[in-house]
Amino acid sequence: MEKTRFERGMEQLKSIDGLGGEKVIESLEDISPDLGRYIVEFAFGDIYTRNGLNLQERELITITSLLTAGGCEPQLAVHINGALNVKIPPQKIIETFLQCIPYTGFPKVLNAVFVAKKIFKEKGLRIL
Amino acid sequence: MEKTRFERGMEQLKSIDGLGGEKVIESLEDISPDLGRYIVEFAFGDIYTRNGLNLQERELITITSLLTAGGCEPQLAVHINGALNVKIPPQKIIETFLQCIPYTGFPKVLNAVFVAKKIFKEKGLRIL
Amino acid sequence: MEKTRFERGMEQLKSIDGLGGEKVIESLEDISPDLGRYIVEFAFGDIYTRNGLNLQERELITITSLLTAGGCEPQLAVHINGALNVKIPPQKIIETFLQCIPYTGFPKVLNAVFVAKKIFKEKGLRIL
Amino acid sequence: MEKTRFERGMEQLKSIDGLGGEKVIESLEDISPDLGRYIVEFAFGDIYTRNGLNLQERELITITSLLTAGGCEPQLAVHINGALNVKIPPQKIIETFLQCIPYTGFPKVLNAVFVAKKIFKEKGLRIL
Amino acid sequence: MEKTRFERGMEQLKSIDGLGGEKVIESLEDISPDLGRYIVEFAFGDIYTRNGLNLQERELITITSLLTAGGCEPQLAVHINGALNVKIPPQKIIETFLQCIPYTGFPKVLNAVFVAKKIFKEKGLRIL
Amino acid sequence: MEKTRFERGMEQLKSIDGLGGEKVIESLEDISPDLGRYIVEFAFGDIYTRNGLNLQERELITITSLLTAGGCEPQLAVHINGALNVKIPPQKIIETFLQCIPYTGFPKVLNAVFVAKKIFKEKGLRIL
Repeated sequence: MEKTRFERGMEQLKSIDGLGGEKVIESLEDISPDLGRYIVEFAFGDIYTRNGLNLQERELITITSLLTAGGCEPQLAVHINGALNVKIPPQKIIETFLQCIPYTGFPKVLNAVFVAKKIFKEKGLRIL
Repeated sequence: MEKTRFERGMEQLKSIDGLGGEKVIESLEDISPDLGRYIVEFAFGDIYTRNGLNLQERELITITSLLTAGGCEPQLAVHINGALNVKIPPQKIIETFLQCIPYTGFPKVLNAVFVAKKIFKEKGLRIL
Repeated sequence: MEKTRFERGMEQLKSIDGLGGEKVIESLEDISPDLGRYIVEFAFGDIYTRNGLNLQERELITITSLLTAGGCEPQLAVHINGALNVKIPPQKIIETFLQCIPYTGFPKVLNAVFVAKKIFKEKGLRIL
Repeated sequence: MEKTRFERGMEQLKSIDGLGGEKVIESLEDISPDLGRYIVEFAFGDIYTRNGLNLQERELITITSLLTAGGCEPQLAVHINGALNVKIPPQKIIETFLQCIPYTGFPKVLNAVFVAKKIFKEKGLRIL
Repeated sequence: MEKTRFERGMEQLKSIDGLGGEKVIESLEDISPDLGRYIVEFAFGDIYTRNGLNLQERELITITSLLTAGGCEPQLAVHINGALNVKIPPQKIIETFLQCIPYTGFPKVLNAVFVAKKIFKEKGLRIL
Repeated sequence: MEKTRFERGMEQLKSIDGLGGEKVIESLEDISPDLGRYIVEFAFGDIYTRNGLNLQERELITITSLLTAGGCEPQLAVHINGALNVKIPPQKIIETFLQCIPYTGFPKVLNAVFVAKKIFKEKGLRIL
């Protein structure tokens, strides 16, 4: 039997964002479960499961977009963890942020790097 | 003899953005040649020549950042051409834009897709 | 038989954005039909058909968000037409834009008002 | 005797944003009382007192604009309280945020929903 | 007799933005004269007439804010003209834009420089 | 012997942002020393040392750009300190923020004023 969009999305969410992603969905249960459902069905079930880009590429794009948007530090934290979960090395996450300097300027890159620094430290990851 | 930052940057600029990039630099000559120089030296000489990401990845990051920033259609056009120059298939450029929907919403993605559509048409590229 | 998300969305899109909305979807057919499908299924099929806000309220929210985002003039044009289609009077559209001044400043409000001015003129709508 | 812009604005501010709004103005007294005065006179005295939209509609527009701008969580908190003060039901505030998903993407909507969740909890408001 | 806010603002608007500013106000007359009035009364009557910064400094701040916001090219054009009207040399306008590179990245600076280039050319101003 | 870009930049950084700036560079040492180096070399060595604007003007431009971008409170704090270091009076910093109201709206100005309020208080600076 074919999986529903929600089932496909939940699988993707778990394999990419792991516990961090599931916690976001759970924290919506008493305020807007539909928002959680749309994230699972649309962002993960429809978009992340598409062909044409692998998961590593999708996560690089996601963290770039979140850095550039600004003010999305909580989501950036979830997806830096997601990037690590899909085996992007910590150094490559930082390199992605540096590539944004000419297009976004230094402040947003600094904000993103400091979010990553905190996460890498919590996980005991050494980058240099 | 070691190349200067400007020389390295100009090589990168030409190999990535081709004529479109050179035209931007030339169009600055009578208004702010220093701005052109900084783009060549810093964006291309310092950042694009770094290790840790290949040119295809750097262009995916660049077009994602330009889409998310909004209002950067001229630069997006230069770098969609740049993405094609470094052999990213047209379909993968569109796929990169679609990955941004959950993070930026539809309007910015539509703007980027229509810039790409115009470029692909001018080049006679078929995507579907 | 229950309508699909696409069918529900297409109905909504037609009743709100009319020809302007359909043209956007058609213009995506040779570059990214999936993008058009997501707009229909998700934006119109999932979100616009929800309870809790009427269509007039949804269009006021949409044009406010597009004004505030900036750089979304084509989408703003589609939804100013949409607002007129769901019977929001022209004066109320302008009033919505004025309410944004304290939160976004004058330039974005000016941009939106000039998009509306052009549309009202084309339709022969007098506002004062 | 006709009320001054400041008097009209202060009345509006109190009736809409209540204590939260007054606290913002007070907190400006030792750093920039003129900024507080402009908020009262212009935002509340000039704009909020206009005809053409009722207060509920004005608050829906305001929270939409603040969500879309991003990085305005303190002001969003003041105006979520304001929305409740003018009798917008909690569920309708959340519904307004969901309507923004297609236009702003999920991260900004999540940020706004979590600001609302905190406020609703403090007030003992149940939404589901 | 003391001048009204509108009279003070109109004087400021004319002395700073000249014809360009007046045209914006006029173009609002058949769509939202109140918006024009608020620009004159509040932006020019209240803010531009304050002490603490001279007009040159106010215009540098204004063009910086417009560059950084993005998507405000029409307003940027008005205020580049305004900057020239209050005797800021063309070279200093460009220098202001270059100072923004580290904080906003190259694309927004390029957009602003090209708006200035067009204006300087129309006025026969040579910058180098 | 001519100073390197890094040496010139480090001098500028110290004279402008003082300890706050140095701390940012140090905090990057174990996560992305290259990012720190680019800030020193490019932002301070290349841009801040240019002719055509004095340091006071450069700091006014910088805090304006950071206020307008939004979400850059940590960098705004560094540069409010920088503005004080180059002898811009506290009142003029606040005045710069007020000049942004018509272009960015009140929320971003409020955010910036509250960052300044905290810094002025820590330094025992009275503004009124």
